[in-house]
Amino acid sequence: MGEARNAALKAKAASRPLALMSTGARNEVLFAMAAALRDSAEAICAANAQDMERARTKGTKDSLLDRLFLDEARVDAMAAGLEALAALPDPVGKVLEERKLYNGIELSRVTVPMGVVAMVYEARPNVTADAAGICLKSGNACVLRGGSLAIDSCVAIADAMHAAAVAAGAPENCITIIRSTDRAQTGELLSLRGLVDVLIPRGGAGLIERCVREAQVPVIETGTGNCHVYVHESADFAKARSIVMNAKTQRTGVCNACESLLVDASVAAKFLPSMLLELAQAGVSIHADKASFDAVAGSDLPDDDKALTLGHMLEASEEDWGREYLDLEISVHVLDGGVAQAIEHINEYGTGHSEAIVAEDAEAAQAFTRGVDAAAVYVNASTRFTDGGEFGLGAEIGISTQKLHVRGPFALEALVTYKYIMRGTGQVRA
Amino acid sequence: MGEARNAALKAKAASRPLALMSTGARNEVLFAMAAALRDSAEAICAANAQDMERARTKGTKDSLLDRLFLDEARVDAMAAGLEALAALPDPVGKVLEERKLYNGIELSRVTVPMGVVAMVYEARPNVTADAAGICLKSGNACVLRGGSLAIDSCVAIADAMHAAAVAAGAPENCITIIRSTDRAQTGELLSLRGLVDVLIPRGGAGLIERCVREAQVPVIETGTGNCHVYVHESADFAKARSIVMNAKTQRTGVCNACESLLVDASVAAKFLPSMLLELAQAGVSIHADKASFDAVAGSDLPDDDKALTLGHMLEASEEDWGREYLDLEISVHVLDGGVAQAIEHINEYGTGHSEAIVAEDAEAAQAFTRGVDAAAVYVNASTRFTDGGEFGLGAEIGISTQKLHVRGPFALEALVTYKYIMRGTGQVRA
Repeated sequence: MGEARNAALKAKAASRPLALMSTGARNEVLFAMAAALRDSAEAICAANAQDMERARTKGTKDSLLDRLFLDEARVDAMAAGLEALAALPDPVGKVLEERKLYNGIELSRVTVPMGVVAMVYEARPNVTADAAGICLKSGNACVLRGGSLAIDSCVAIADAMHAAAVAAGAPENCITIIRSTDRAQTGELLSLRGLVDVLIPRGGAGLIERCVREAQVPVIETGTGNCHVYVHESADFAKARSIVMNAKTQRTGVCNACESLLVDASVAAKFLPSMLLELAQAGVSIHADKASFDAVAGSDLPDDDKALTLGHMLEASEEDWGREYLDLEISVHVLDGGVAQAIEHINEYGTGHSEAIVAEDAEAAQAFTRGVDAAAVYVNASTRFTDGGEFGLGAEIGISTQKLHVRGPFALEALVTYKYIMRGTGQVRA
Repeated sequence: MGEARNAALKAKAASRPLALMSTGARNEVLFAMAAALRDSAEAICAANAQDMERARTKGTKDSLLDRLFLDEARVDAMAAGLEALAALPDPVGKVLEERKLYNGIELSRVTVPMGVVAMVYEARPNVTADAAGICLKSGNACVLRGGSLAIDSCVAIADAMHAAAVAAGAPENCITIIRSTDRAQTGELLSLRGLVDVLIPRGGAGLIERCVREAQVPVIETGTGNCHVYVHESADFAKARSIVMNAKTQRTGVCNACESLLVDASVAAKFLPSMLLELAQAGVSIHADKASFDAVAGSDLPDDDKALTLGHMLEASEEDWGREYLDLEISVHVLDGGVAQAIEHINEYGTGHSEAIVAEDAEAAQAFTRGVDAAAVYVNASTRFTDGGEFGLGAEIGISTQKLHVRGPFALEALVTYKYIMRGTGQVRA
């Protein structure tokens, strides 16, 4: 038996008493975990220093090193995150329905913890605290599988939280972490039908891909976002420019950033030149179709601006319509089929994440919101709002791009299931 | 490209216009499909005769032949099923929440069809009509994959329904069926990430096992039921006997039948002899532990009854605690740890389906309903009630033994997801 199975078996055993803990008791445990992180900050940072050294030796790039790095302030932020969880409403024990059946049996359907939640993530030590906290809050035992680069940090964080949780009354093994960095342990974890009730990968496309392909346990797929902004001929151009700039440039490495701009042919000549100039001024590379080139070339932009804009434009290939750049890059496509073509294009190339129309015409907006198949469909607003915090959800776990169980940003509610409780007086089936 | 991928691509294209059809229009399509089944009854029965002949040649056993067989009455029953679906409430278009965000964006969350639903089933031609109807009702395009033994019947049914649906205004390919009986097509179907939004296997353990193990698309696992009846020391014995007899013998080949009887040691001597006699009289084989043998042997049952009972008893091995007999067989286990041990035993050996306690003691009943991890937990009622019809759900699709998305009996509501519609006035993220 590998370590993953062993951890899941222990977590399963812990999940039984954990599910019976009261809301107050679970919140007390979260406070104890937070205090333990602060008390262990020095030890956690020392473990992190070992990870950092190994990562540097391996030539890890700076952006990853920054995600890996911990100092006291970052440990404190993890602790504060656990305390914030304690303040949220309990997703467990909600009565979803109550009714009497024809035969007198009283049916009630009540939310209960999933049981064992597995979280697979990359070299971000803070996810260890976040994942354990979210699971504890929702009454679930967890199996954590962090990235190998961050293993010492993750183990130090998990051990500190676990000891404090048990001391505060939580069952032994309510938090388990896989210590081996052997890749095969991830495979084993993905295979644990009956032991792992749900697995959530949190990380890049490669990690998610592997989990979805290999998993025999239920998975919530959080994924990539090839998000579009479609500028309808009825658009208010000022709104459109501000939405496109925000969705493309406010933060580029995120799944809800805009990757593709669609523009109605009837307004391309009026709208595109100044729009693409603004993008070019912001340093955005523009993968443009021929009509977009024509709009800029034939425009009355001053020569310098025109040169700057064209200097940022590249010829788009069909591949560009499906690309998630996650960078200062965008594709631009002029459509002559109106909202129907925009819907078709988005349903073909989009990833079902976040899609926006800019339009003053209410009918076009309605056709778009009805026709586009995505978790979040926006009218006259930036795609960047697809986020648990912006949606008012409390503690976001991720953004689901599947349709089963949860779609779009999801939080604690995704970690509970329900149970039918049926109270009879001796009823048997006829 | 194999037939499965081709069918799913076509279904995906059909899913777009289908999702936009009104409730009334979809119900009209269901009526047209029902009429077409009645009109095509002769052709369907002729196709079925070919399946039956092939099946007989292969030496298929009678119970399977009966499931495979169609006559006009059975075709009529399928048509009536479609009409009954039309009368049910529409699961699509429900507003789950509506609120204004801090920034003025109006958020609404609305149920929408999944898109493409794949149904994999065995040699029961009637599932073809049922599955297509459920998908059409919920606005989903479907890919049907029936068992090879029933292929001619399934194709005839699907073709008749599809032609009528299209004539009544549904999009071409709203119902697709895989015609090849090559096993590899099932594998291809299971791999179609991005094309199949959810896959539901309906059939025996082997089929479900394969789907869950191989699928890269989201699956709803419907599964086996190793259901227990636990007789607490506070039980009303008359209720207990009637519940056990009903749960074990009313129908044996079903997942909500009782497979294991647990009895508190303190009442074993009083309760078990007459209970096991009644089971023996009903022809039930009893896999019993030593304490159960002792209870019968030491009882004051008349000699004939005692002999009859003991004649139906076999020594149970630990394996029996985990077996789903689906037959006139039961395991019996005497517990000396009360309700806590019953909960532990059930959580160890159960399949999370349906579990019952018979008890007059309210505290014991509450401990049981809280502690047992199953879709449906009964107090003083038969496990046989776990059924969409009995729960008042309308058209049951199956009984989920997973915790993601749906648990227990599920119906049309399981085939919709939701979409966030966000209406702004130019908002961008700060």
